[in-house]
Amino acid sequence: MVKIGILGATGYAGIELVRILSQHPQVEIVSVTSQSYAGQKISDIYPHLRGLCDMTCEKPDVEKISRQCDLVFTALPHGVSKTIVPQLAAHNLKVIDLSGDFRYNDTTVYEKWYGTPHTDPALLEKAVYGLPELHRAQIAKASLIGNPGCYTTCSILPLVPLLANQMIHRDNIIIDAKSGVSGAGRSTALPYHFCECTENMKAYKIAAHRHTSEIEQELSEVAGEQMMLSFTPHLVPMKRGIITTAYANLKQKCTTASLLDMYKQYYQDEYFIRIHPEGKLPETKYVAGSNFIDIGMVVDERLNRVVVVAALDNIIKGAAGQAVQNMNILLGIDEKTGLAAPGMYI
Amino acid sequence: MVKIGILGATGYAGIELVRILSQHPQVEIVSVTSQSYAGQKISDIYPHLRGLCDMTCEKPDVEKISRQCDLVFTALPHGVSKTIVPQLAAHNLKVIDLSGDFRYNDTTVYEKWYGTPHTDPALLEKAVYGLPELHRAQIAKASLIGNPGCYTTCSILPLVPLLANQMIHRDNIIIDAKSGVSGAGRSTALPYHFCECTENMKAYKIAAHRHTSEIEQELSEVAGEQMMLSFTPHLVPMKRGIITTAYANLKQKCTTASLLDMYKQYYQDEYFIRIHPEGKLPETKYVAGSNFIDIGMVVDERLNRVVVVAALDNIIKGAAGQAVQNMNILLGIDEKTGLAAPGMYI
Amino acid sequence: MVKIGILGATGYAGIELVRILSQHPQVEIVSVTSQSYAGQKISDIYPHLRGLCDMTCEKPDVEKISRQCDLVFTALPHGVSKTIVPQLAAHNLKVIDLSGDFRYNDTTVYEKWYGTPHTDPALLEKAVYGLPELHRAQIAKASLIGNPGCYTTCSILPLVPLLANQMIHRDNIIIDAKSGVSGAGRSTALPYHFCECTENMKAYKIAAHRHTSEIEQELSEVAGEQMMLSFTPHLVPMKRGIITTAYANLKQKCTTASLLDMYKQYYQDEYFIRIHPEGKLPETKYVAGSNFIDIGMVVDERLNRVVVVAALDNIIKGAAGQAVQNMNILLGIDEKTGLAAPGMYI
Amino acid sequence: MVKIGILGATGYAGIELVRILSQHPQVEIVSVTSQSYAGQKISDIYPHLRGLCDMTCEKPDVEKISRQCDLVFTALPHGVSKTIVPQLAAHNLKVIDLSGDFRYNDTTVYEKWYGTPHTDPALLEKAVYGLPELHRAQIAKASLIGNPGCYTTCSILPLVPLLANQMIHRDNIIIDAKSGVSGAGRSTALPYHFCECTENMKAYKIAAHRHTSEIEQELSEVAGEQMMLSFTPHLVPMKRGIITTAYANLKQKCTTASLLDMYKQYYQDEYFIRIHPEGKLPETKYVAGSNFIDIGMVVDERLNRVVVVAALDNIIKGAAGQAVQNMNILLGIDEKTGLAAPGMYI
Repeated sequence: MVKIGILGATGYAGIELVRILSQHPQVEIVSVTSQSYAGQKISDIYPHLRGLCDMTCEKPDVEKISRQCDLVFTALPHGVSKTIVPQLAAHNLKVIDLSGDFRYNDTTVYEKWYGTPHTDPALLEKAVYGLPELHRAQIAKASLIGNPGCYTTCSILPLVPLLANQMIHRDNIIIDAKSGVSGAGRSTALPYHFCECTENMKAYKIAAHRHTSEIEQELSEVAGEQMMLSFTPHLVPMKRGIITTAYANLKQKCTTASLLDMYKQYYQDEYFIRIHPEGKLPETKYVAGSNFIDIGMVVDERLNRVVVVAALDNIIKGAAGQAVQNMNILLGIDEKTGLAAPGMYI
Repeated sequence: MVKIGILGATGYAGIELVRILSQHPQVEIVSVTSQSYAGQKISDIYPHLRGLCDMTCEKPDVEKISRQCDLVFTALPHGVSKTIVPQLAAHNLKVIDLSGDFRYNDTTVYEKWYGTPHTDPALLEKAVYGLPELHRAQIAKASLIGNPGCYTTCSILPLVPLLANQMIHRDNIIIDAKSGVSGAGRSTALPYHFCECTENMKAYKIAAHRHTSEIEQELSEVAGEQMMLSFTPHLVPMKRGIITTAYANLKQKCTTASLLDMYKQYYQDEYFIRIHPEGKLPETKYVAGSNFIDIGMVVDERLNRVVVVAALDNIIKGAAGQAVQNMNILLGIDEKTGLAAPGMYI
Repeated sequence: MVKIGILGATGYAGIELVRILSQHPQVEIVSVTSQSYAGQKISDIYPHLRGLCDMTCEKPDVEKISRQCDLVFTALPHGVSKTIVPQLAAHNLKVIDLSGDFRYNDTTVYEKWYGTPHTDPALLEKAVYGLPELHRAQIAKASLIGNPGCYTTCSILPLVPLLANQMIHRDNIIIDAKSGVSGAGRSTALPYHFCECTENMKAYKIAAHRHTSEIEQELSEVAGEQMMLSFTPHLVPMKRGIITTAYANLKQKCTTASLLDMYKQYYQDEYFIRIHPEGKLPETKYVAGSNFIDIGMVVDERLNRVVVVAALDNIIKGAAGQAVQNMNILLGIDEKTGLAAPGMYI
Repeated sequence: MVKIGILGATGYAGIELVRILSQHPQVEIVSVTSQSYAGQKISDIYPHLRGLCDMTCEKPDVEKISRQCDLVFTALPHGVSKTIVPQLAAHNLKVIDLSGDFRYNDTTVYEKWYGTPHTDPALLEKAVYGLPELHRAQIAKASLIGNPGCYTTCSILPLVPLLANQMIHRDNIIIDAKSGVSGAGRSTALPYHFCECTENMKAYKIAAHRHTSEIEQELSEVAGEQMMLSFTPHLVPMKRGIITTAYANLKQKCTTASLLDMYKQYYQDEYFIRIHPEGKLPETKYVAGSNFIDIGMVVDERLNRVVVVAALDNIIKGAAGQAVQNMNILLGIDEKTGLAAPGMYI
C-alpha cells in the first residue's frame, strides 16, 4: 500500500480526497492535517465519514510527514502551497498540489495574475500541469504536479480538439462558465451564506479571473500560438457542478455531426471524457459525484459558430478526483482505480 | 376604475397579473378565466391570495368578457392567443397579449421560427411591440400590444445603447442567458420536476430558441441594419430571475466608466432601468419581486470587448409587471402605478 | 408623517423594516444605523433598494436619534438591545424591540434561559409582549414593545384557541418547528454556508431552545395555569418561511370540522390569521412575502389527538411585519397599513 | 455471478438499484424493464450511467425473465407489484419487492389502509418484512421479501430499543417526519414541480399516511402489544434525505448519556446504524449517498421525554440500498458488499 498524506484535509477538496482515497484499494491514508481542526477527528468534523475515516487531524509537520508518507496531496489555499510544497519536495516526497501555485510554465504570468512574486520559480518550472488528457506522459514521471481546478479543466478540454485541428478562429473565443457554490470552498464569507446564494445568480470577476491565464496557457500551447480569450465565471445556487458554454467562430462550414465525430475520435482513449450524441447536451446532474467530464455541442449554421457545452463535478474531476487520477498515473496503476463509481443523477 | 379581464389567470404570469392588479389603485379585476380551473376560486388554486382575490375562474367567453371589461390581458400559451385575440379585438377591446403571437413586424419571421402559419397577419401588423423603453409613444396609442417576454427584455435593453450609438461590431454579439424555472411556466413535464432541476444546470435549444428572432428584430431596428446574433438559454435551479451576459467587440477603445456614463445618460428617464456603478454587477436577488431591470458592465481592455450583465424578474419585468407598465401607458397614468414596490433581497 | 429610526437596519429583520416602512404612507424613515456598515448607503449594502432607499447608515447615537425620531425600532442582537433600549426609553422614545430582551413577564425566566442577568428589570416589567392578537389593548398604550419572533408567533397563535377553550390536555403538547435559514440572521457562521445548508435538514437545540420559555409564558397565561411543553426547532433549506406542527391530546372526541369552526370564530376579527378549510393545510409559499399566519388542522380520530399546522414568513409576521403591525396599533391607525400586499406564491 | 433482473428500472429507486448493482462484485444485471421507456437505453434515460450501464429497457416478460434471472427486484408502483410478483414467484424466482404490496403480516391491515383487496393473501403471508436489523434470520431464508420504504425504516429503527426495553409509554408516541422530494418518485404531478417545491415546506396526509400501519405493525411486534401512534409526513425542498423526530414519554427518569449507551449496545452489531454521541445530532447530509441510518437523541429532563432524531437517504437505506442489503443476506454474502461507499457531505 502506498502511504498517503493529505495536507488541508478539511476543506471541500481535501475531504473529497479523504472520501475517495479511503475507498482506494492500493493506497492508505496515513496522515491528515488541518490548521483549523488539528486535534479533532475527521469524522467529528465531517460525520458522513463516521466509521469510515476516524483519523485525527494534525498540524502539518513536514519532517513527520516525510517519514510517514510516500506521496502527499496539498489541498491548501493559494499562497500557502507556495511555502510548504518546496519543503515537502526537499524531502523527496511526490506532491500533488491542488492550489494555483504550481500550474504555470512562466513565472511572470503567475506573478501578473496573482499580483505577488513566486517564491520558488525553480520548483515551479519543474512542476507538471496535471491535466492527464493533455500531459499524461509527463505526469507519469513528475515529482510535483500542479493539479488544475474546476474552471480550467472544464474550459480547456472542450476546446482542445477544435484548436488542435485548427478549426476555429482564435480571436473570438468566449467561455461563459457557471459554477456551484462549493467551488468557492468552505469560506464563511457573506457571499456564500445560504440566504445570499439560494434563488440567486450572478457574474463576478469579469475579465479578471485568475483562471483565465491558465486556460490561455494551455490552449495557446495546443494552438501553437499565443492567444487570449474571454472567460466569465458565474455563481449558481447549487452545491456541486460546473458548466461551461464556449463560443467560437468556425473557419469552414461544418455540421454538428461532423464535429462530434471529430471529438469522439480525438478523445477516443479518454475514459473520463464522454461526448454526447447530436441532440443531447451535458447537464451537471449527469456528472455530479463522478470523475467524468461530459461534452456536447451545436453548430449554429446561421452564424458559422460552434457552441460547445461541457459539465463536470467541480470537486471531483475539477479537484480531488483529478488529483487521484494523476496519482494513479504517477503510480503506474489503472487510471480509473478508485474513480469508477458513477455519479448520482438525483 | 378601469375594468380588467385576465385570460389565463392561473399560469405563473397570469397569477402575477392578479397579484399586482389586485393592489393597483386605478383598475378593478372583473373577470378571470382558466381552461383547467374553471369553476374554482383563485384563492383555492393559489392560497396566498386567500382573502385578497377570491374570484371564481370562468371558461373564457368573449361576448361576456367584452361586455364586462375595458381592457384584457391574455396570458395564454403561444398559438392559443392567435385564435382568441382577434375575437377580442373585433369587440374593440384593448388587449395586452403575453404570448409570442403578436410580437413580430414581419409575418414571415414569425412563421419561420414558430413553424406554423399566422392566422391573422393583418392584426399582427397592427400590434405594437410592448417594450416601453423602446416604443412608449406607439404603446400609448395601441389597441393591441404584444408584450415581450423575459429572455427578450433582458437581452434587448442591455444592448440598445451600444447599438444605437454604433459602438460595437454587429457580427460577433453573443448573449448567454440563464433563467429560473418559472420561465417555463406551470407545465408538469419531467424536466421541471423538482428532483430533475435542483442541483442541476443545463443549456438548451442552442441556436434554435424562438426568442432569438425577437431579439434580432428589435436590435436590428435600433442598429439600423439587419443583424444576427447568438442566443443561448440555460436553466438555473431557482424559481424567479433571469440574468444575461452579453459579449460584444468594441469599435474603439473605451473604459468601463465611460460606457456606464453613456448608459446612464441614454436611460436617464427610465425609472425601471437601473445602471450599476463601476465595480458592481447585477444579481437576480436585487430585482426579484420588482419591475426593475438592472444593468452593469465591464470593458475587457485586453480584448477590447465589453461584457454587459443584466438581471430582471422573469415574471414581473419579464411578463406581468411589464404588461402592467404597458397598461399604465395605455391608460395615460403614471407608469409606475402599482409597480413601485421594491423586490425582496432574501 | 411619524419620524422613524431603525437601529440595526442591515440585518435581515432590519432591512425588511426598511423595505416595508419605505412604502408606508404615514411614516418616514429618518435614521438608519448599523455598527458594521456605518458610512455606507443602504442601497449599496442591499442593492434591491437602489432608488428606493439611498440613506446612509450611521453609528447609533442616542442623543441624535432622540432628537430626530418619534419612534424607534431596535433590530439588534440579543444582549445589545438590553443596553441601548433603556437609553432610548430614557429619552421618552417609543421603542419596538425585536430582540428577546424585553419579552418576559418574569426576570427570573429570562435569566434562566439566557444565562445572564437582566440589566434593567424595571424596564422589562413595563414592556408589553407585542403579539397583537393577544395583547392589542396594552400594545396601543405601550411605550416599549418586546416584539416576538418567528418561532414563538408560529407556536403560540395556533394553540391559543384550544387552550383558551380548555379543549386539550396540557401535559402532552409537542411543537415540532421547521424554519428557513434567514431565521438565523445574516451571520456568516459555517452552519449557514450555502453548501452546508442546501439539500440538508437537521434538528437543533432540542429541549433547550430559548423560545420555549416565551411560548410557555404566553400559553400558560392563556391556559390560566403554568404549563410546559416540547419545542423542537429544525433547519430547512429555504430562505424564508416557518412551519410548525403541533400535537395535543383532546379532552373530548371532536371532529376536524368542529375545531375549524371554533378557530374561525375565535379569530374572526384577526385579519392576519387565516384558517384553512378542512382538507387544506398551510404551506410556507402561501405566506412568504406577507404578514399572514395560516393555520390548518386535522383531528386524528384514532388517537383523539389534534395536529395543528401553522405557517408564516419568519421575517415578516415573525419579525418586521409584526413590528409594523405593532407600530400601527401604537399610532392608532389601521393595523393593515403598509402590510396589505399579498405574498408571492412563486 | 448471480443474475439479476430489475423490473421498473427507470424510477428513482429502480435506477439506484442499477447504479449500485452495476458496481456490485458478485452479481450481474441481465435484464432491466420499463413500461414507459421500453426500447430505450438506460444511459439515454439517465445519462449519468453512460458508459456504465448501456443496457436497453424491455417490456416486462415473466417467462423471459424467469429464464434469465436468479433473483429479481420489483421497483413497481403499489398495486402493480401485487399482480406481477405472484407470477415471478410461480417461476421460483427469488423476489425483492420495493412496493407496499408484500409488507404486511395481516391482510386486513393492508386492505384497510390501501382501500383495496389483496389479490394474493397466501403469498403475502409467506413474504418476509425486509428490515435486516429486525428480521435478518428470516430474510436469509425468504423467497419473497417486502422491502420497507424510507418513512418506515426511519421511523421503526430509532424506536425499537426503547420499546424492546420497555422504557417508554406506548400511548403517546409521535413521529414527525420530513422527506426530500424524491420520496414521491418521478411523478410529474404539479406538487412536485420545481417552482411548487423549492422554498416551500408543508405537511400532508396527516393521520392518514399508509406507512403508519407498517410502523405500527413492526413496533407492536417489538413491544409485544398492539399500539398506535401519530405519524406526520412533511415535504422538504431537497432531493434526497429523510429525517424523523420522534417523541416518547419515558417511564423512568434517565439521561441522554444512558440512553445512548443502551442504543449503542442494542445495535452494536449493526454496521449500517450509527449512533451519534451526546451533543451531536444526525443531519441528512451525513447519510446522503450512503446506506447508513444515523440516530441521535436528547432526553428532555424537564418533561421526562425523549426526543430521538434519525436520518437516512430515502433512496438508499430507504429503498434501493436496503434492497441490496437484503439481497446480500439472501445470497449469504457480506451484507456490506456493494454498499460500503460513504455518502457525500456536500
